[in-house]
This record gives sequence, structure tokens and C-alpha cells, in this order.
Amino acid sequence: MSAIAQTPKPPYYAVIFSSLRTPVDAGYGEMADLMATLAAQQPGYLGAESAREGLGITVSYWQSLEAIRAWKANVDHQLAQRQGREKWYSAYKTRIALVERDYGFEV
Amino acid sequence: MSAIAQTPKPPYYAVIFSSLRTPVDAGYGEMADLMATLAAQQPGYLGAESAREGLGITVSYWQSLEAIRAWKANVDHQLAQRQGREKWYSAYKTRIALVERDYGFEV
Repeated sequence: MSAIAQTPKPPYYAVIFSSLRTPVDAGYGEMADLMATLAAQQPGYLGAESAREGLGITVSYWQSLEAIRAWKANVDHQLAQRQGREKWYSAYKTRIALVERDYGFEV
Repeated sequence: MSAIAQTPKPPYYAVIFSSLRTPVDAGYGEMADLMATLAAQQPGYLGAESAREGLGITVSYWQSLEAIRAWKANVDHQLAQRQGREKWYSAYKTRIALVERDYGFEV
């Protein structure tokens, strides 16, 4: 996910997930890849952007709150969330935000 | 900015700035540090989070759209934005979003 997400004209939703990792690796990379793949298959998914540099920031974009709720409740995602709290993350914060406006620039 | 921002109870605004860099360094790090410092001095600034891993994501948090507009119009920031388009960024996208809800976890 090292590209800027090609999202439609606003409004749409963003889920900003900011996290700090523990030193525990045990399956983290594989689970992160799997969750990115599963999220992209969800109805209402519009794209995602991700970077980690100490702090990790993943922003996923969605058509609606309903789409976000369905992904949060997905059973595989629920399992990943529990493992995240148990071993991979020392802290995280999730923010649900309505994107009202966007603009950009490309060379 | 390698910590999760301590933001107040929603609603508040997020500015999600996603960018890809050119290979040109010339003063980029110093300007980025200066802009982070200046932003933090603006009225209505609530915090920021930043990570780059190929793709760069900086999310800054604000009390209101007015605060975001004032920062966008700041003359030093305008100069930095112009230099950004001229030499440091090959592409960027800015999204203005109203944070409606947040939740988190800490060990």
C-alpha cells in the first residue's frame, strides 16, 4: 500500500488507525497482509494507505458507516483485533471521520 | 511525532496529508520540522501523527475548519507548500475530515 488511494469525490468515510507495536512479531506481518486483503474485498471499501515509522498509521476509506461497521464485525477481523490487543500492539487509537473535501497535486 | 496524538472527545477535524517524495532532499527535513513546530503554535491545533514508509502520511487534528483554513493560509506555510510542489513531492492528496467517533486501547 505504498500509493495514494484513488478515492471518489467526497463525501466518504476514513478510518484512521494509529498504533504502536510491541516487540512481538509472531505472525504480525502475515496477519496485516491478510486483513488488508480481506478489507479490500468488503462491500463499500474504497482504498487504504499505510506507513509505519515507529508510529504506524493506516487510513482506510469507506462508502458509509454501515460498511465500516460490517468490516469491524467481520469474524476474521474480530480475531485479528483480539490478537492485536493481546500481543502486537501496546496502544492504538481508531478514529472514524467523514471526509468532506479533498484536493491534491501530481507532477 | 512518534506518539499517538492525545485528542479531545470528538467532534474535531482531521487533515490527512498523504504524499510521495521526489529524490530531492534540499532542506526538506528542516522545513518539515519547522512546519510541525509552526502548526503546533496555531490556534485550534490539537495534535499530529506522522509516518513515512515510501508513502508518507501526516494526520493533523484541529478544533474547527476555521483553524484549518488559517493554517493553510499562513504565509510561511504557503511558502512551504509552494516549495513542496516545486521540488519535494511528486504527488500528494489532502483530505479534510470530521472525526465523529474514536476509541482506543493501551496496555
